[in-house]
Amino acid sequence: MLIPALVDIADNNQDWKVFVGSSALIGMLCALVFMATRGDKPRFTQRLGFLIVTSVWVFGAVVGTVPLYVSSVNLTPAGAFFESMSGITATGATVISGLDALPRGILMWRSLLQWIGGIGIIGMALLILPTLRTGGMALFHMENSDKSDKVLPRINQLSGGLVAAYMVLTMLCTVAYTGLGMSFFDAVNHAMTTVATAGFSTHDLSMGYFDDNRILLTATLFMILGALPFVIYIRAFLPRRFHLWRDPQIKVFLTLCLVLSLTIAISRRIINGTPFDEAMISSAFNLVSIITTTGYASEDYTLWSNAAIGVFFLATFLGGCAGSTTGGIKANRLYILYQVVEANFRRLVRPNAVIRMRYGNNEIAPEGVQTVTIYFFLFFGTLLLGTVILSMYGLDLITAFTATLTALANVGPGFGQVIGPAGNFSSLPDGALWVLSVTMLLGRLELVTVLILLFPATWND
Amino acid sequence: MLIPALVDIADNNQDWKVFVGSSALIGMLCALVFMATRGDKPRFTQRLGFLIVTSVWVFGAVVGTVPLYVSSVNLTPAGAFFESMSGITATGATVISGLDALPRGILMWRSLLQWIGGIGIIGMALLILPTLRTGGMALFHMENSDKSDKVLPRINQLSGGLVAAYMVLTMLCTVAYTGLGMSFFDAVNHAMTTVATAGFSTHDLSMGYFDDNRILLTATLFMILGALPFVIYIRAFLPRRFHLWRDPQIKVFLTLCLVLSLTIAISRRIINGTPFDEAMISSAFNLVSIITTTGYASEDYTLWSNAAIGVFFLATFLGGCAGSTTGGIKANRLYILYQVVEANFRRLVRPNAVIRMRYGNNEIAPEGVQTVTIYFFLFFGTLLLGTVILSMYGLDLITAFTATLTALANVGPGFGQVIGPAGNFSSLPDGALWVLSVTMLLGRLELVTVLILLFPATWND
Repeated sequence: MLIPALVDIADNNQDWKVFVGSSALIGMLCALVFMATRGDKPRFTQRLGFLIVTSVWVFGAVVGTVPLYVSSVNLTPAGAFFESMSGITATGATVISGLDALPRGILMWRSLLQWIGGIGIIGMALLILPTLRTGGMALFHMENSDKSDKVLPRINQLSGGLVAAYMVLTMLCTVAYTGLGMSFFDAVNHAMTTVATAGFSTHDLSMGYFDDNRILLTATLFMILGALPFVIYIRAFLPRRFHLWRDPQIKVFLTLCLVLSLTIAISRRIINGTPFDEAMISSAFNLVSIITTTGYASEDYTLWSNAAIGVFFLATFLGGCAGSTTGGIKANRLYILYQVVEANFRRLVRPNAVIRMRYGNNEIAPEGVQTVTIYFFLFFGTLLLGTVILSMYGLDLITAFTATLTALANVGPGFGQVIGPAGNFSSLPDGALWVLSVTMLLGRLELVTVLILLFPATWND
Repeated sequence: MLIPALVDIADNNQDWKVFVGSSALIGMLCALVFMATRGDKPRFTQRLGFLIVTSVWVFGAVVGTVPLYVSSVNLTPAGAFFESMSGITATGATVISGLDALPRGILMWRSLLQWIGGIGIIGMALLILPTLRTGGMALFHMENSDKSDKVLPRINQLSGGLVAAYMVLTMLCTVAYTGLGMSFFDAVNHAMTTVATAGFSTHDLSMGYFDDNRILLTATLFMILGALPFVIYIRAFLPRRFHLWRDPQIKVFLTLCLVLSLTIAISRRIINGTPFDEAMISSAFNLVSIITTTGYASEDYTLWSNAAIGVFFLATFLGGCAGSTTGGIKANRLYILYQVVEANFRRLVRPNAVIRMRYGNNEIAPEGVQTVTIYFFLFFGTLLLGTVILSMYGLDLITAFTATLTALANVGPGFGQVIGPAGNFSSLPDGALWVLSVTMLLGRLELVTVLILLFPATWND
């Protein structure tokens, strides 16, 4: 909070007091919690793990809310909490319009929330959720560590590398954006929300503000880099373990980016008559923005055609790679789902054949299949129930359904008149914003982590 | 085909020639096929089973198409095939408007297609798919038969009872409709499409034409009876085996009907000020019509409120019970999905506990879980891909998505301006109608049966 305070002081904006005050308040609260919880640590159990992970993210969202609510932006509690949750979960949906006129401290705070959220997501996905035997990386955990007592040394070894890779990527992206003509402030903010595949911008027009294809291409590159499993950046310094193409999800993800971008570009060539090279750049940028769950837009792509809308709709579900900053179903799960279907088909036709499912060089454990299966059930179950609940707040079907989807997959924009890439979430009733805040949290914590806490048997002894 | 021919002769309508001609044509074709395939039967394999089931339904759809295309209704080949497929799969989506002015022979033919489709569905679900170890009843099969060599005697024993139960229900429904003031022709047609939970009507206003709450209540009752597992009607004559409440899916299904109907009725009381008793009858009728995948409407329920739309949208996915004439995900799968999630939650919290999943008094076999899982993946995968393909034909998102959904779940009406309960599918381009015809077939054959034929490894030897 002291960084946006400094920005506001430099701009001579009174909001600096908000950040310093919030900082002091949160600091005191932390000190109190610290003192209240000194003494013997409780025995670590699985359910304690789920409770801690969920609490940390809720606490992060509350911390993010304080300056947004107190500042000069004029948000309701529901709006400020939504904005903060959208930040810390790296979703990118916003209730604020008139970003260009906002104090730079608040803009910086929004970007920082997403940047911190981004590294939190990677750390959680790579280091914490696997020890709780859930999340998209549960499978990887079994792959990478031979014995569970290797987990702690691995955490120490990995976490430094992850933070370093994240900071290097952010710096490279800042340099590239500055070199292409962005102001340093815009470059820093957008670099943070690009690498975190998060999507907050400092302009209402999002990346369309800069109107520069080179910036779109650079952003596309860094969104893809942010959507790859971050382990590969550490492995890059360990030559013998650098096997980029060994991880099947990378192939799946890059193929999807290419095929879907091409589909949109070709449809624009045919339907709108847009020259192919021009169509390709903006199609790739906007598609990659959605599939990596970033949520930038360079223009209102829902005006291109219904064919383009169909592809963007599909992309909203997909997500990037496990172990990255992206949300959504993710390429590793898609790969495993395909393996499960294929194995079942083979078994139906040849009842006596022995069929093994493989992920790269490793056999998929039944536990890995189950983790993916459960995620899939919970994802679509939450999507449908969320739609019904939002419709109770009077939202039309397309808004209710795609708002739930975009929150659950941590993407950002939805579809329809209200929450499409040219709109925002400000006109939604407070109740709907609370529901969507919870949905973003559910999606970010891979559903199980939160939902298991609501399951009565978790607390039976 | 001779039944609608007789109706047309009685009405002095020249379409009787169409039916007699079609009948002769199809008869000759069948004779040719019969002669060409005499001789040794090939060894029965799983893949041959899937091929036969799929072929029979495609053949049924083609047979249904001939009189529709040749008659005076003036349909394109795509429209006639769509209408026939919607009939034989008991979906109920239509491309025909002006039903009230149509020759009665054609109306009768549409209803007959659905009625025959309905008994075909039960037979397939109860007797054939389980021997191919797929479909919603695969689990039941393991339950009911101790050894696989009991399958054939069971088929003979069951099929007579099923046909009898189906005919008795249809007759009772006809009598009830006639008693409530429907013409005999309307009563027979609606009884056939009610018990088959199929949804074709003889009037553009569907059940709204009769404007009679007693008819709505009667229809609600018979749609529910058609959505229960038909085995219970046979068990009813075997006193010791009559355990209606032992099958958990029945509880799930009836609870869903009650809770969702109540939710809609209460929302109408609050939002529209509709008196509760009046709201309850039409809410229950229209909700049961959707959840049982029938597809009748008594009025345009999408005008009630966005809250009601949300509930109807959810209901479109759900379906009735396995072993009935309904489509959709179905209550037995919902129950098993919940069991799987619960078991996984317990396992995460208590890694060393032994957890068994139960369906009624039986333990769920891993194979049963897998069958349900695969269906779920394929359902949502097909739904998303279908949406993208339809959007390529220029359909807007809400039409593309809910058209795929309503076809896949064999419901009938979708949502939005075009294919909502007050609209129909006539304005869709031919390409979209072909895609939707395939989708209806996929949904009706529980996806695996058809998709496994497109899987290259099925044909490797």
